[in-house]
Amino acid sequence: MKKVAKKEIKKLDERLAFAQRQLRSLGSSVIIVVEGWGASGKGKLINDMILPLDPRGFCVFTKSESDEEKRYPFLRSYMTKLPKHGEISIFDSSWYRKTLNKYIDKKILKSDFEKDIEEISNFEKIIADDGTLILKFFLDITKKEQKERLENLLSKTQTRWRVSDEDILNNQRYVSFKNVFKKMISKTDKAYSKWKIINANVTEIASYEIKKAVLSAMEEKIKEKNLSLDPKKPQIPEKADTDFLKKVDLSLDISKKDYKKELEFYQKKLFDLQNIFYLKKIPTVIVFEGWDAAGKGGAIKRLSGGLDPRGYRVFSTSAPTKEELSYHYLKRFWNNFPKSGHIAIFDRSWYGRVMVEPIEGFCNEDEYKRAFWEINETEKILYDNKTVIVKFFIHISKDEQLKRFEERKKNPEKAWKLTDEDYRNREKWDEYVCAIEKMLEKTSTSYAPWHTVSGNSKKYARIYVLKTVCEAMENYLKKEEKEL
Amino acid sequence: MKKVAKKEIKKLDERLAFAQRQLRSLGSSVIIVVEGWGASGKGKLINDMILPLDPRGFCVFTKSESDEEKRYPFLRSYMTKLPKHGEISIFDSSWYRKTLNKYIDKKILKSDFEKDIEEISNFEKIIADDGTLILKFFLDITKKEQKERLENLLSKTQTRWRVSDEDILNNQRYVSFKNVFKKMISKTDKAYSKWKIINANVTEIASYEIKKAVLSAMEEKIKEKNLSLDPKKPQIPEKADTDFLKKVDLSLDISKKDYKKELEFYQKKLFDLQNIFYLKKIPTVIVFEGWDAAGKGGAIKRLSGGLDPRGYRVFSTSAPTKEELSYHYLKRFWNNFPKSGHIAIFDRSWYGRVMVEPIEGFCNEDEYKRAFWEINETEKILYDNKTVIVKFFIHISKDEQLKRFEERKKNPEKAWKLTDEDYRNREKWDEYVCAIEKMLEKTSTSYAPWHTVSGNSKKYARIYVLKTVCEAMENYLKKEEKEL
Repeated sequence: MKKVAKKEIKKLDERLAFAQRQLRSLGSSVIIVVEGWGASGKGKLINDMILPLDPRGFCVFTKSESDEEKRYPFLRSYMTKLPKHGEISIFDSSWYRKTLNKYIDKKILKSDFEKDIEEISNFEKIIADDGTLILKFFLDITKKEQKERLENLLSKTQTRWRVSDEDILNNQRYVSFKNVFKKMISKTDKAYSKWKIINANVTEIASYEIKKAVLSAMEEKIKEKNLSLDPKKPQIPEKADTDFLKKVDLSLDISKKDYKKELEFYQKKLFDLQNIFYLKKIPTVIVFEGWDAAGKGGAIKRLSGGLDPRGYRVFSTSAPTKEELSYHYLKRFWNNFPKSGHIAIFDRSWYGRVMVEPIEGFCNEDEYKRAFWEINETEKILYDNKTVIVKFFIHISKDEQLKRFEERKKNPEKAWKLTDEDYRNREKWDEYVCAIEKMLEKTSTSYAPWHTVSGNSKKYARIYVLKTVCEAMENYLKKEEKEL
Repeated sequence: MKKVAKKEIKKLDERLAFAQRQLRSLGSSVIIVVEGWGASGKGKLINDMILPLDPRGFCVFTKSESDEEKRYPFLRSYMTKLPKHGEISIFDSSWYRKTLNKYIDKKILKSDFEKDIEEISNFEKIIADDGTLILKFFLDITKKEQKERLENLLSKTQTRWRVSDEDILNNQRYVSFKNVFKKMISKTDKAYSKWKIINANVTEIASYEIKKAVLSAMEEKIKEKNLSLDPKKPQIPEKADTDFLKKVDLSLDISKKDYKKELEFYQKKLFDLQNIFYLKKIPTVIVFEGWDAAGKGGAIKRLSGGLDPRGYRVFSTSAPTKEELSYHYLKRFWNNFPKSGHIAIFDRSWYGRVMVEPIEGFCNEDEYKRAFWEINETEKILYDNKTVIVKFFIHISKDEQLKRFEERKKNPEKAWKLTDEDYRNREKWDEYVCAIEKMLEKTSTSYAPWHTVSGNSKKYARIYVLKTVCEAMENYLKKEEKEL
């Protein structure tokens, strides 16, 4: 192996900095994963890579899962660390680490290992589809080299603490590790997120190789981005194949007396369930979608009226801010997914991606089409993390909506709720029906089913919601009991 | 005590919701702290308070310090939870809790208790000065009532877990607790953040009292805000009282040979210090300010060139985004303060508040005038948390700046760094000198001194920076050794 000339490195560094600026102006993000053997030189190699870059545009994340993060699906902490459009996130160790460690320590069933691998691949696909370049490096050193490096670290007071007993043990288990790494790499080497194995026995050469690989992938991306065609407008089906909404019986109602009785009954029951779920550390996600003025807010108020505020939060989804638009559209929801034992209530949600966004042209055809899969996979990740998911679509008739709009107009306490946009949306009622039908059809899964709610009677809808949430939570407990 | 009529509560709720919307449109934030005895009904009372509000505009935070948060000054986690302008943050237990607990368990020296109290008061003042309404409630119940409530909780399977042995012990120590609470409250009852003690023996009445108090403070705030005068433009002194910059010897230089030698020497030394500080869990803050083209970027690159990237981060401060502008100006820096053992390097910083902001009119006279105190107190909080703080102002001559601008213009690799703004800033050189002198005078403290750096020779400046950081870290270690 020959040494790399200093001049050549300088030139490479300048090109890297230039590529970073170009990608930034194109709004293309990059994710760089650096995995590898213990003592393979990750720190030094990452520092070499970032020094030529503008620090405004990248961030290095180090493995280390806080106890707070342990209360979420393991992928969440990475989802929330995704780069803004045009920026770079570098992961020193990554979402592979936890599963790898569990596998090596034999703390994971084969089926769960496969499930993790699938989740990881889906996660990477969701990100890559958004236009993010994913580069994964594995720093490879020989068993002998690793042993020498560990001994070298141990020989100095300054660095001795960096070597744990486990590191030494791991060096002895080098061969079996190698097999696990190989398996992991081969299973997750995808067109949209390729692995590159770097010979890291000579750090200087490895550094040059990594930078060259990063630069070449970046330049490729720039070319591709410059060539890419104008995105197509999303196509909502003109006629619905299903009739979920028509099937909702809008005449359902409840007497005032029964309403009061049931409200009290289910609020108390839900409070008890909140307690049990808190103790059992089970998270709950409740999604509310529905027509304007369908009564989402009122239903949420009755749902949360009896809860302990320290264990639930309501997230109202409005149009994304400029800041939010500069990330993957799912990120702002990932931020708000509940931790173990908590309840997250979404007043509108990620389903905006398949309703208002395509109708108003806020996403393109590709984005619209792949959203169904993305959403199902995301909810699957929550479900795999033992989350109870309940989704409501509150349906009302077009006449009932008009009536409620007029009432709001007259009532000074409620007039602020009514905007011109509500009337504009109303004009697109039929278009929305088609989008909603498609959504209900494509995203109702066994683990996260939709409940269509008869909403012409607000009271009926509120009780239905409360009852359905209680039932979903009770069913979870029953299922859990059965499995034991 | 009489019961509160349902109609009256409904009216109060409507007025609360209305006040929330008004404050939102005025951009005024509210912080509500709810402290009180164990079993005083915090959860129920907070839920009553939030149900009438629009969930888009508030957030409830529950005490619970993650292990990650323990690696920062205890106030940081609250600083990062401050409401956006126009929003409400509700704290179930708060920044008082940790100090209170330590005091009760006799785990804190009297002097440290006083220091915490002072930090808390300063923290509240910094927030209140920004226009945030701070309301602090203490929920008071009698010893007998507390005992009954604990027994009641213990008697049911669903709620038994909520009562710890400590709760029962604390009920027995009621009187000594009461004294600590009283002391804390009297010491932190300020005009800008008043305490209100709520008799919480009857939850329903307490709920009404809290809401009434919140409403009245909000309505007061709305009136005040509507009356407030237009803010004045900031006044930079026209002549500097000091001559720190003039005293910098700009002729200082270093030979290429010495530069190479010292660079290597100090980078190695700094790497070792980074290791020691990491092990000792001491955080370091390094601030870079200086003229455009003074060489901040180059100095930072040499400073970080030898570091382990997993233990440092460079934060470049550009103009705040719209999102950032909707918070207290210090929040974005609090977000980036280093955790224990880590190094945060700021390429420009919070000192923008006393340089570019007053000169460009991005802050008003009041904000400019109080910024010096705010900054000193903030750095004091870091220092009290054992942070090493090193601040550099890199000085160059006006001629040298022009030379560098011209060089950048010619060099295609560097031309992007040069903007029209750089030339505009240059025209304001003398105004900047006055602002900088005032900054150096007012914010050079024993615990966070400024170092003016001779920057006409880039090489000299880089070595000076490296050496000064090493010295500051070594001095810290020496001082620590002496204290043991």
